[in-house]
Amino acid sequence: MYNIFSYRISGLQPSAIREILKFTADPSVISFAAGNPAPEAFPVETIRKLSDDILREEPVSALQYSVTEGYTPLRDWLKADMKEKGVFKQGRDELVITSGAQQAIEVITKILCNESETIICEKPSFVGALNSFRSYNAKLVGVDMDDEGIIPEKLDKALKDNPRTAFIYLIPNFQNPTGKTMSFERRKQILNIAAIHKVFILEDNPYGDLRFDGIDIPSLKALDKNSLVIYVGSFSKILAPGLRVGWLAAPEHIIQKSVVAMQVSTVHTNIWAQMIAYRFVTTVDFNEHLENLRYIYKKKYELMIGNLQFRFPNYITFTEPEGGLFIWGTLPKGSDMMKFCRTAVEHKVAIVPGSAFMPKESDVTTSFRLNYSTPTDLQIENGVEILAKVAKKLYYF
Amino acid sequence: MYNIFSYRISGLQPSAIREILKFTADPSVISFAAGNPAPEAFPVETIRKLSDDILREEPVSALQYSVTEGYTPLRDWLKADMKEKGVFKQGRDELVITSGAQQAIEVITKILCNESETIICEKPSFVGALNSFRSYNAKLVGVDMDDEGIIPEKLDKALKDNPRTAFIYLIPNFQNPTGKTMSFERRKQILNIAAIHKVFILEDNPYGDLRFDGIDIPSLKALDKNSLVIYVGSFSKILAPGLRVGWLAAPEHIIQKSVVAMQVSTVHTNIWAQMIAYRFVTTVDFNEHLENLRYIYKKKYELMIGNLQFRFPNYITFTEPEGGLFIWGTLPKGSDMMKFCRTAVEHKVAIVPGSAFMPKESDVTTSFRLNYSTPTDLQIENGVEILAKVAKKLYYF
Repeated sequence: MYNIFSYRISGLQPSAIREILKFTADPSVISFAAGNPAPEAFPVETIRKLSDDILREEPVSALQYSVTEGYTPLRDWLKADMKEKGVFKQGRDELVITSGAQQAIEVITKILCNESETIICEKPSFVGALNSFRSYNAKLVGVDMDDEGIIPEKLDKALKDNPRTAFIYLIPNFQNPTGKTMSFERRKQILNIAAIHKVFILEDNPYGDLRFDGIDIPSLKALDKNSLVIYVGSFSKILAPGLRVGWLAAPEHIIQKSVVAMQVSTVHTNIWAQMIAYRFVTTVDFNEHLENLRYIYKKKYELMIGNLQFRFPNYITFTEPEGGLFIWGTLPKGSDMMKFCRTAVEHKVAIVPGSAFMPKESDVTTSFRLNYSTPTDLQIENGVEILAKVAKKLYYF
Repeated sequence: MYNIFSYRISGLQPSAIREILKFTADPSVISFAAGNPAPEAFPVETIRKLSDDILREEPVSALQYSVTEGYTPLRDWLKADMKEKGVFKQGRDELVITSGAQQAIEVITKILCNESETIICEKPSFVGALNSFRSYNAKLVGVDMDDEGIIPEKLDKALKDNPRTAFIYLIPNFQNPTGKTMSFERRKQILNIAAIHKVFILEDNPYGDLRFDGIDIPSLKALDKNSLVIYVGSFSKILAPGLRVGWLAAPEHIIQKSVVAMQVSTVHTNIWAQMIAYRFVTTVDFNEHLENLRYIYKKKYELMIGNLQFRFPNYITFTEPEGGLFIWGTLPKGSDMMKFCRTAVEHKVAIVPGSAFMPKESDVTTSFRLNYSTPTDLQIENGVEILAKVAKKLYYF
């Protein structure tokens, strides 16, 4: 045994969030650390009824092997829905169902990125995606964001500095972890830069349907004229994450290779879950369901941001997202952010240190992530009060 | 865009079986080409009841994000069950639930095998595993089998010739595609060779519980004294493949890395499916269920082998497995096996050409794979009759 683990995986550590989440197993800890949808948003009764119908009407289809591409009625529905939004381009694009958006991200990395090639992402970015990239030994290059999203000049420079870039990974809507949304103008600028450098964009859009304020901005894929955008969607935040159903929409040759990669991994996504998703979007008023979700998240968001703004001094700042699940807090420059997070968890409130979302370990941040979708209203109020006390103790404001 | 696809994936083609399976979409084609369990073996009513109970009693657990390691009650049950069989070694091993056995195989490849390293396997072997190895640019080395399994001297030579071997992949019970079972003596010999070369064995055992003749032989993992065997199990053949639930049992440090790799891929396996599997093994008489499966498969096997032996001349040979799903037929040396398969499908019977299971494209074979679990009794009788006619036409016997 001349070695044990592959180079690609040997440096990969369990996500730092997991360390924090361990504390949240303690029921006395208020967790703002998760990224779970609100459990009260699950349409439990409907799912139970649909499940019973499926297992009565077509049990063998739900239990037998199925095709890697995914359950055809669900694929067709998604294609039609995305075509309506301008995202799916008939005759040019294809679509495959994945075992959650995370699998879509992993598969795209596997098929597009050789070891030691570069993946450019927002700094900070979603830790699950970053770890997926790391698991293929990709070189991660983070590019700073301003209030409109990733900064074009800096992205252009990163692409010039890294000619062997496999793709740019972006979360344009209510980004994880910052909650920021890329402006319409910025989207067009970014697409131009990608076209000049002829580089793919992996657009991750799990929160796009969870906009509770402002107006929708077309997705990068809808604005893309050069077949460079690969789009990832998910039922995790709009139906239920335990189902593990997401999708990948991209130019046909990308999907063909993705299907081959999935055939050798999960073979296909749990078919019962795909049938549930299909019957759900076609038999209930899906728009009404989404409206209900937005209402739940808007209320929770407003409660949290109101309490944060009331209790914290203005030198500790918070983003004000128009949708999604997260608020990004930032301590004054030079603060010991890790100490703040550790003290908070000692006082029974869990938040995620911003360092978890940094592409490089050496990237310094004084920020932290707060989630408002999982805690109850009372937990939001009490948790923010405790956090503010911790901040007061550390900063003497 | 200096390239599109990664080196690891660019050579990978969709499985050759898929090309054959395309014909089986035609309902007039009798398919002996699949590897699907018999649909009449699915405990539909029980699953429907369990599903309803789960969605009534613990809907949020079934729908919310869960842990990557898998549903704890199912993991604990599997550990206890495998401990009883001597496979799981408490205090040394760990176990993780996977989205089917195929994901377990892919994850082990990802964490153990660098690009261009060698994976040694039986020749022929399961095409899904071979393609998973290929998708990481592994060098495949196939080792011939005799009636007792992979040949020790040849395995030893292959290991000497390939010092950079990541692991040996073996299916000791009712191997796919040959139906062969490795003898007890042979298992001990193979373990000795692995120990001398200090190389891991990936033991894939999806069919072990489907023995309908002879007596069980302890698994390689049960006989392993050197913590070199990684064990893959599956609910696909003993419950339902649409669930996509399998598992991986191995020394603890292997499982830790596997969990990290799965965290960045599927996050976790569909949780409803894991709960169904758990309630199934604990609330029904699981042994009685397995007895019933064995009875179904034995009957189908005997019908097929009887018809094959009756209708074919003795210079076309067939293996006689004691379990599993497959029979391996072999035409006389020098035969045009591809022509036989093509002619068969023209006559509306689909079988899989043996070349699909060869580690190297240059490996020559005159064999083909027959499945008896999916077709009905009538299809078995008619299909074998047609196959024999095709053989007669080509061989003038």
